[in-house]
Amino acid sequence: MAESHDAVDVIRTKRDGHPLDDDQIDWVVDAYTRGAVADEQMSALAMAILIRGMDRREIARWTAAMIASGERMDFSSLSRPTSDKHSTGGVGDKITLPLAPLVAACGVAVPQLSGRGLGHTGGTLDKLESIPGWQASLSKEAMMEQLESVGVVVCAAGSGLAPADKKLYALRDVTGTVEAIPLIASSIMSKKIAEGTGSLVLDVKVGSGAFMKELDDARELAETMVALGEDAGVHTVALLTDMSTPLGLTAGNALEVRESVEVLAGGGPGDVVELTLALAREMLIGAGRSDVDPAEKLADGSAMDVWRAMIAAQGGDPDGTLPVARESEVLRADSDGVLSRLDALSVGVAAWRLGAGRARQGEAVQAGAGVEIHAKHGDPVRAGEPLLTLHTDTPERFERALAALQDAVDIHADAPPARDVVIDRVPATT
Amino acid sequence: MAESHDAVDVIRTKRDGHPLDDDQIDWVVDAYTRGAVADEQMSALAMAILIRGMDRREIARWTAAMIASGERMDFSSLSRPTSDKHSTGGVGDKITLPLAPLVAACGVAVPQLSGRGLGHTGGTLDKLESIPGWQASLSKEAMMEQLESVGVVVCAAGSGLAPADKKLYALRDVTGTVEAIPLIASSIMSKKIAEGTGSLVLDVKVGSGAFMKELDDARELAETMVALGEDAGVHTVALLTDMSTPLGLTAGNALEVRESVEVLAGGGPGDVVELTLALAREMLIGAGRSDVDPAEKLADGSAMDVWRAMIAAQGGDPDGTLPVARESEVLRADSDGVLSRLDALSVGVAAWRLGAGRARQGEAVQAGAGVEIHAKHGDPVRAGEPLLTLHTDTPERFERALAALQDAVDIHADAPPARDVVIDRVPATT
Repeated sequence: MAESHDAVDVIRTKRDGHPLDDDQIDWVVDAYTRGAVADEQMSALAMAILIRGMDRREIARWTAAMIASGERMDFSSLSRPTSDKHSTGGVGDKITLPLAPLVAACGVAVPQLSGRGLGHTGGTLDKLESIPGWQASLSKEAMMEQLESVGVVVCAAGSGLAPADKKLYALRDVTGTVEAIPLIASSIMSKKIAEGTGSLVLDVKVGSGAFMKELDDARELAETMVALGEDAGVHTVALLTDMSTPLGLTAGNALEVRESVEVLAGGGPGDVVELTLALAREMLIGAGRSDVDPAEKLADGSAMDVWRAMIAAQGGDPDGTLPVARESEVLRADSDGVLSRLDALSVGVAAWRLGAGRARQGEAVQAGAGVEIHAKHGDPVRAGEPLLTLHTDTPERFERALAALQDAVDIHADAPPARDVVIDRVPATT
Repeated sequence: MAESHDAVDVIRTKRDGHPLDDDQIDWVVDAYTRGAVADEQMSALAMAILIRGMDRREIARWTAAMIASGERMDFSSLSRPTSDKHSTGGVGDKITLPLAPLVAACGVAVPQLSGRGLGHTGGTLDKLESIPGWQASLSKEAMMEQLESVGVVVCAAGSGLAPADKKLYALRDVTGTVEAIPLIASSIMSKKIAEGTGSLVLDVKVGSGAFMKELDDARELAETMVALGEDAGVHTVALLTDMSTPLGLTAGNALEVRESVEVLAGGGPGDVVELTLALAREMLIGAGRSDVDPAEKLADGSAMDVWRAMIAAQGGDPDGTLPVARESEVLRADSDGVLSRLDALSVGVAAWRLGAGRARQGEAVQAGAGVEIHAKHGDPVRAGEPLLTLHTDTPERFERALAALQDAVDIHADAPPARDVVIDRVPATT
């Protein structure tokens, strides 16, 4: 088939710092998905995009072209408005687990198509799969039925949504072109828009444990994604949230489920509760239900009821015993003082090395592995007191996990004020 | 086999504007040649190099790594010094044909490993192959023998020289990464250094018919290549020469052979003679034989004698009849005046479309096809007088060739002064 464009012309346009026109974008995304543009051509283009950037029109068109590469879901037949949340990933980020049933308990349907983890940040599906019997894969019919009956579903995204993104992401991963904000934003937003949610809240994390280490980069990503959502007719808002230290007191799969259930039971760590409620309020605003107070639904047990129904609907036993790792080791304070720093990335890498995460797609993870945190920022500690407990089924992993934690903790005479969990809010500007 | 480096780390280094260290360069060129670095990784790196650049050390190391990917020839056993010339390619650029035997006639051996043409600039081998019986492929032994006995050989480069360059050039061609000066320079120089010449003269062309349209770009390329040659111990100098208008009065294969023989017989167009002598003088300086005057060797017929011996040694008949195209068509002046512009690119594209060149490697070319030029810059012309004669075996090609020439010629009341053939000389600075 004769092609309407030439890949080298498209690459040269961006290489030389010019914007791609709509036709070029539509063609190159489609032709890449079809295989008419080769991997080595797309990677050169991705590098040019990374260095030269893209303007708002280009990013919106690129996202639309990725959406057009696959199917698009539609929840407009549901009796309730829909809202979804996306996190850019962090250490101990179990927020989806309490948040999704909480928002459903407030009368807004939550269709969460999630992924598995890769690297030091965990995946929501990996966490839920530590619950005995729970199944991540649902048919579209089962998903719609559960959304109507329970009000929330957290399941694996089918391969039909934005297949161009799947192919492009795998390419970027091996070609040093992951860190392009236009491509990150369009990758996330193409899937979320194709998923068909009516409104969307983005949790853009910033700090050592996050993809974005610097606030300016996180803000640029957040603004880009919010604009993309608005351009596609999806009410979108972003929160910039702290990921310099882990969220809550656990990083790992079953460990995080246990902590999430504590939050749903009205307890749990303050930072997890605070962020859950902040995101819930934004989702309710987006779905037009700001009249409902999520704190009440957490306190009165209705969020817990939805959680139990959601787990049960997907084959899980909400009362089942969660797996516990076979071995553990304790890291203790080496001096008296106040904990002034607990580094998110170090804890994330330790949990990963203990078996909670995977290095390659398709690897198995350990349900019980991970890190328990006994002291957080500002807590007084004494020499010899436990700071962290490391869990794994395979004790030969302790050595490398402890190596990751070598410079993870500072203890001083006093600690600077803790950072706010929610750093800023990025609403739509148009 | 475990690799000593990670391709993504190397790509990221250059992507973020940092220099690659020697180990990274050695590894990535070798690993790409072996297939351990994939095409899509090398194309992303090539794009990063194109946009971010490389410093002199990086380019020298990259070139050395490409040389190390293959074999290296050695002419030190010859009884004479060696010198070679490389042209970046132009329209009507038949200079190698008179130049190589002329320099040999001056006592310097000329080992010219040449290529075939691609696009609108012709290839030296294509031109010589229009001579009945002439063979481009020689064994290494035959090449050495001819260099010793005749003093000059123009033949096809074997696939053993810089195989990394061959693989990388094919990749750059389809990924919009041809136009990177570090990669152009290292591609040319890796082959010339591996070829083993003792000295080298570069003819870097600038103007519409050249790869480099702007003088600044041509100068940067020339300086980069001269530095590379010096760093590798090869005495190197570059001339920046004009390619805004075709060289001589012919563009095509047999047409250019005929013109070259005229030059060797003491005639020929002034610009071809001037450039041939200028390059010959540089080659003689490089080889330490500046005591010999090439103009004398042209005038006294010794260059022609070497030409005839060279053609005969490779199976050609120096007295054989050159092919003539079956059809011709004349382009005439549409007004009286002075020819003030004859565009090189237009003539080159016309010759290509007439069948003198190829669009893809491996395509056959027509020996007789091309363009004859009847008026050059500054010549008075009258309406209806022939300006160009187009030649081809396949008359259906005339239409597209004439289309290429639509804006090729300006005729005005007077013409600006002609540009010098040799614009500048770029010697080694260290």
